[in-house]
Amino acid sequence: MTSNSFCEFFEGTEKLMEIWFDKYQDNPNDCDLRHIQRSAWDTLLSFVNCKIISFKRNEHMDAYVLSESSLFVSKNRIIIKTCGSTTLLRCLEPLLYLVKQVAGFDEVVDIFYSRKNFMRPELQDGSHRTFENEVEALDNLFEDGAAYCMGRMNSDCWYLYTLNSPLIESKSFKQTPDQTFEIIMQNLDHKVMNIFTRAVSSSGKEATQKSGIDKLLPGMTIDDFLFDPCGYSMNGLIKGGYYVTIHITPEPHCSYVSFETNCPHTAYPDLVNRLLKVFIPGKFLMTICANELSTSFNAHKEFRDVEFQGFDRKELQVCRFKNYDITYGLYAKPNS
Amino acid sequence: MTSNSFCEFFEGTEKLMEIWFDKYQDNPNDCDLRHIQRSAWDTLLSFVNCKIISFKRNEHMDAYVLSESSLFVSKNRIIIKTCGSTTLLRCLEPLLYLVKQVAGFDEVVDIFYSRKNFMRPELQDGSHRTFENEVEALDNLFEDGAAYCMGRMNSDCWYLYTLNSPLIESKSFKQTPDQTFEIIMQNLDHKVMNIFTRAVSSSGKEATQKSGIDKLLPGMTIDDFLFDPCGYSMNGLIKGGYYVTIHITPEPHCSYVSFETNCPHTAYPDLVNRLLKVFIPGKFLMTICANELSTSFNAHKEFRDVEFQGFDRKELQVCRFKNYDITYGLYAKPNS
Repeated sequence: MTSNSFCEFFEGTEKLMEIWFDKYQDNPNDCDLRHIQRSAWDTLLSFVNCKIISFKRNEHMDAYVLSESSLFVSKNRIIIKTCGSTTLLRCLEPLLYLVKQVAGFDEVVDIFYSRKNFMRPELQDGSHRTFENEVEALDNLFEDGAAYCMGRMNSDCWYLYTLNSPLIESKSFKQTPDQTFEIIMQNLDHKVMNIFTRAVSSSGKEATQKSGIDKLLPGMTIDDFLFDPCGYSMNGLIKGGYYVTIHITPEPHCSYVSFETNCPHTAYPDLVNRLLKVFIPGKFLMTICANELSTSFNAHKEFRDVEFQGFDRKELQVCRFKNYDITYGLYAKPNS
Repeated sequence: MTSNSFCEFFEGTEKLMEIWFDKYQDNPNDCDLRHIQRSAWDTLLSFVNCKIISFKRNEHMDAYVLSESSLFVSKNRIIIKTCGSTTLLRCLEPLLYLVKQVAGFDEVVDIFYSRKNFMRPELQDGSHRTFENEVEALDNLFEDGAAYCMGRMNSDCWYLYTLNSPLIESKSFKQTPDQTFEIIMQNLDHKVMNIFTRAVSSSGKEATQKSGIDKLLPGMTIDDFLFDPCGYSMNGLIKGGYYVTIHITPEPHCSYVSFETNCPHTAYPDLVNRLLKVFIPGKFLMTICANELSTSFNAHKEFRDVEFQGFDRKELQVCRFKNYDITYGLYAKPNS
């Protein structure tokens, strides 16, 4: 710890779960995950050990800022991302029940549960301490789930659990273009991180503007929150059904920033460069998950020869799954 | 088990270790791993729990058939592959010592330790029961070793440990074109497997010819061995410093065939098709490891759109490492 250290250790590393739903037999037009009431989410999130602290919506999506990260609810897709020592998988079974009872969907079309390796796994609840434990819990709920590890199992890596089975032969489910870009940055610049403390910024809005987050992508409706004494969360909604979410743990000994969006890009390296300029990390891990209909489907080709100034490429991996291609990259400054 | 079952369970799944050596300070011209005497290998292999049962050599390589798989010794590279419940990693420390004392090399340039997931890990010695255990042992001997898992961690997968660091700045080490192709086949045709039993074939040579192994690649000098009552091993040497090795566990309830070669190919799918025709597996896992100088460096592109008749592609992954690209594919018949 340095003289800058203002908090105890915090595990910024999020558990991220995205689930797509469908109705197997009937027309799913009447089904909608947004029929689930706020009070039901409150109850559900009590299993996870986190709370709703802010809310915004547009015609496509309900976006909740949580005490630990974010929740996005669309008609047929839920994205829930929680950090710290939350117990995300504990909400899965009640969530599936709630979705069936209230939203009307009876089929999980696809699930993506992912996370980076924890900095301090020993501080997690048993259900999340190892990926093996998480896989066991997921295997109990899903048939033919596939568990992957990209990157180095004995160092920086990224775990993914997904169904990776052919899309269920449903009368109604139509695949639409879909892509998710996530970047996880660590060992960040102290001055930048200080922006995300109450000592330097008085509000989420001030931190958003001072850091330049508001200019990262055009057209965002922003819901930002600055925690006391430090920490920052932001949900951004963009027309067309797109979201952005940023979560920041600024403590110098465990600094962590995640940025995630489903906004399609045809030039991801440009976006990466903008993010590196704003946050100045010592290392970063990047994943792009895109289906065949996405304009980002061939994103991995862009990264094959690209270099990021000052960073060594430690790893580049591409997986072809049934419905998605995933690109994984790890980059680090020589002394990071 | 079927009426065809003639033996107890045998773990065909091999542990495979390839190590490249160099001399850090001086000219390595006088160094040669083939200075290591047969008696020293005998002692070393006692740590592994296997024995030499046959030997052939050419100007490039010494090739040993072992009671459990094979050992290839070139001037600056050792390849050792052992199956069953052998304890391969137990020979590593004494091997490094022996190499220094007898062959004169003092530097490990690169190491590749790999294996498929075991069918029955609980039957392995503690040192090999989990990949985590293996990684721990390797991490104790090497700095900056990288551990990977390709494929599904909760099903069929392939583990790899390698240094993945920039080539050591050695005065002498020159990278040469290098590629390794390995295919691991399971759930094989019973009639084909019967060829590799004493009940059907009287010798290794007969099994080699009956099966068509002798025609798989041109120009092989073959050293083959048929075990009693069943099981088959083969080393092939090809001019130019190339090897082939095939190991067969024919028991119907645990049938397993591995084929490995460093022979460069520009059309791997053709080779795969020849192998599928000879062995008729229900599923197969394939890896290609090639450096930038290899004509096989872009092999992964060949597999992007290729299909193998009767097989579903379960997985295709590509990793770019510092010095090597690795392509991983898993294919299975619908009911296998």
